[in-house]
Amino acid sequence: MTTVDDVSRPSRVAGPDEAISVEELQLAARNHGIPLEALRYDVTPAGLHYLLIHYDIPDVDPDAHTLTVSGAVARPLRLDLAALRARPRVTRQVTLECAGNGRALLHPRPVSQPWLVEAVGNAEWTGTPLAPLLREAGLSDDAVDVVFTGADHGVERGVEQDYQRALPVADALREEVLLAYEMNGAPLLPQHGAPLRLIVPGWYGMAHVKWLRDVHVTTEPFEGYQNAVAYRLRADADDPGVPVTRIEPRALVRPPGFPDFMSRTRVLRPGPCTVDGRAWSGYGPVTSVEVTFDGGGSWVPASLDESTGDGWGWRRWSVAWTAKPGRWVLGARATDASGRSQPVEQPWNRGGFANNLVQRVAVVVPAE
Amino acid sequence: MTTVDDVSRPSRVAGPDEAISVEELQLAARNHGIPLEALRYDVTPAGLHYLLIHYDIPDVDPDAHTLTVSGAVARPLRLDLAALRARPRVTRQVTLECAGNGRALLHPRPVSQPWLVEAVGNAEWTGTPLAPLLREAGLSDDAVDVVFTGADHGVERGVEQDYQRALPVADALREEVLLAYEMNGAPLLPQHGAPLRLIVPGWYGMAHVKWLRDVHVTTEPFEGYQNAVAYRLRADADDPGVPVTRIEPRALVRPPGFPDFMSRTRVLRPGPCTVDGRAWSGYGPVTSVEVTFDGGGSWVPASLDESTGDGWGWRRWSVAWTAKPGRWVLGARATDASGRSQPVEQPWNRGGFANNLVQRVAVVVPAE
Repeated sequence: MTTVDDVSRPSRVAGPDEAISVEELQLAARNHGIPLEALRYDVTPAGLHYLLIHYDIPDVDPDAHTLTVSGAVARPLRLDLAALRARPRVTRQVTLECAGNGRALLHPRPVSQPWLVEAVGNAEWTGTPLAPLLREAGLSDDAVDVVFTGADHGVERGVEQDYQRALPVADALREEVLLAYEMNGAPLLPQHGAPLRLIVPGWYGMAHVKWLRDVHVTTEPFEGYQNAVAYRLRADADDPGVPVTRIEPRALVRPPGFPDFMSRTRVLRPGPCTVDGRAWSGYGPVTSVEVTFDGGGSWVPASLDESTGDGWGWRRWSVAWTAKPGRWVLGARATDASGRSQPVEQPWNRGGFANNLVQRVAVVVPAE
Repeated sequence: MTTVDDVSRPSRVAGPDEAISVEELQLAARNHGIPLEALRYDVTPAGLHYLLIHYDIPDVDPDAHTLTVSGAVARPLRLDLAALRARPRVTRQVTLECAGNGRALLHPRPVSQPWLVEAVGNAEWTGTPLAPLLREAGLSDDAVDVVFTGADHGVERGVEQDYQRALPVADALREEVLLAYEMNGAPLLPQHGAPLRLIVPGWYGMAHVKWLRDVHVTTEPFEGYQNAVAYRLRADADDPGVPVTRIEPRALVRPPGFPDFMSRTRVLRPGPCTVDGRAWSGYGPVTSVEVTFDGGGSWVPASLDESTGDGWGWRRWSVAWTAKPGRWVLGARATDASGRSQPVEQPWNRGGFANNLVQRVAVVVPAE
């Protein structure tokens, strides 16, 4: 008998010689990254911000959409978009990164969305803070988690589900957390969660629930799929692991020069130039960036521009370089105020999450 | 000595057991397709339209940008954006498809941008017709080709180049060809050619030159890379081939039900439903669409909605279906007014161009 279980297979890690599968390619064709030259923009334009959509983009009518606040609250709420827009309005620049960024470069490779390094974007999100709404609803004293449910529906590893992610109450009450209805000054695009999504500054993308329709307060820890099964740092399949939460520090190089179409190797004319990029962390402000031109053999300090926004967006960094003929491998390493930095040897976990291995950008400087 | 040649390798076809390479994945992470559920929209929203960018998105200042009309003309022209916007304004709905759509499903697989079936979009392009501008410039009687040059620069198979594509004069003078500065009612996004691009209704995407900066009329056939080397239908590497031009007919199914995250297999509840999608052709109006539920074994006719736009956009098609428990493989086949249709056995050429093999959408209908 045909059942929903027939569409899923267990999670797995690719074999040592196993290249990208058609299933991984299907995900890559849907869920795109930021083209790295778009690191030039302080605020990532529409369509260039990374996307990771688990199921389908749902078809949500903004005029009929409501947000409910339910569960362990004194006064359950139901608000339409007009009611949310009538509440205090905040715009916040926030860097979002997919928890699986870098996964496809791991050895062995966890089989899932095959990101290289490009699953990031920095947008201006406008909405109303969540915390006052939760306080108005009257959180129960024994509230533990706040569960956010989207309108997107699918199957994962045999579990049929609406996309749901919980935050611990203390994180849900952070003043920075937004119910966002605009991105870069325009109503949310369908693929970014129209008409309403959660923004949790500093956390990986899985927490920023799109097409948000319900906020449910629980008095027991939430054991839904995306918290208890999917987004965990596990050593192996039997390890219960720990939750994926905040964004590890990362710096990306904006590839200098111009590319070869197929290899994406860069060609850069010899001579003085500025190499730049962006850096961010969910654990605190980026305090330094170092740059390598020899694939991690040696490092030079970069200058950091002032933060734009109020500390949750990326920072531009730059360094002067005199490009001499030859082959170079560029990379950058961010350190944040918490002391976290980036490894040059790969970290590894079975889901390929929170991997902030230093990028490698191949640059050829031709002799003139 | 290091040279620009060092960044490129010759074009090639993957070996029989060779899976997707990291180089192909790099392209897939940049150049995304339309998520197939977005076939629901008559006009593809920003960020969901397919993208194929050969090199980098260039950084073009719209206020400083000019278009030159040069070569075999009596009166060379230079126009800024304000001058172009002051000319007659036309909005046209046009379906664009990448010439390489479907490439990654071919056996053997040409190694390039690894599209499955999703390299398409239907947008409203606003601009000014090209033909009157060419007439004002005074085309020479012996004009042969019109060469369009973009501001994007890179290397391909060892050839450093600005992206350039030519149209034969008769095609450049078609009244439908636009110099477009808006998409879906907003200024062009960087990735769609801001501030100016060519739109050539009916032709594959390679003709719609983005970041357009020069229109050059020649009295000899243009022998640039993108016309003479890249976009040709060749049986093998030694075949000079024929140019890729207009879009072959294609119908896509909007996948019904909901997906499994990893396999993208669809789950659909049993019972009556409507299956729909879109169909288009660059050779003439789509005149019929047939649908298969058994992977091409049998076909039923679909209903066609009226064309939206003036004939260069896609048409919605639909068919009633009673989904019974089991496994199904859906596909659709368009036929156009020229008599062209879609094969169920793969066509093949060395570049993987103009391949309109019928799509296969795996659907599981669970027993209730």
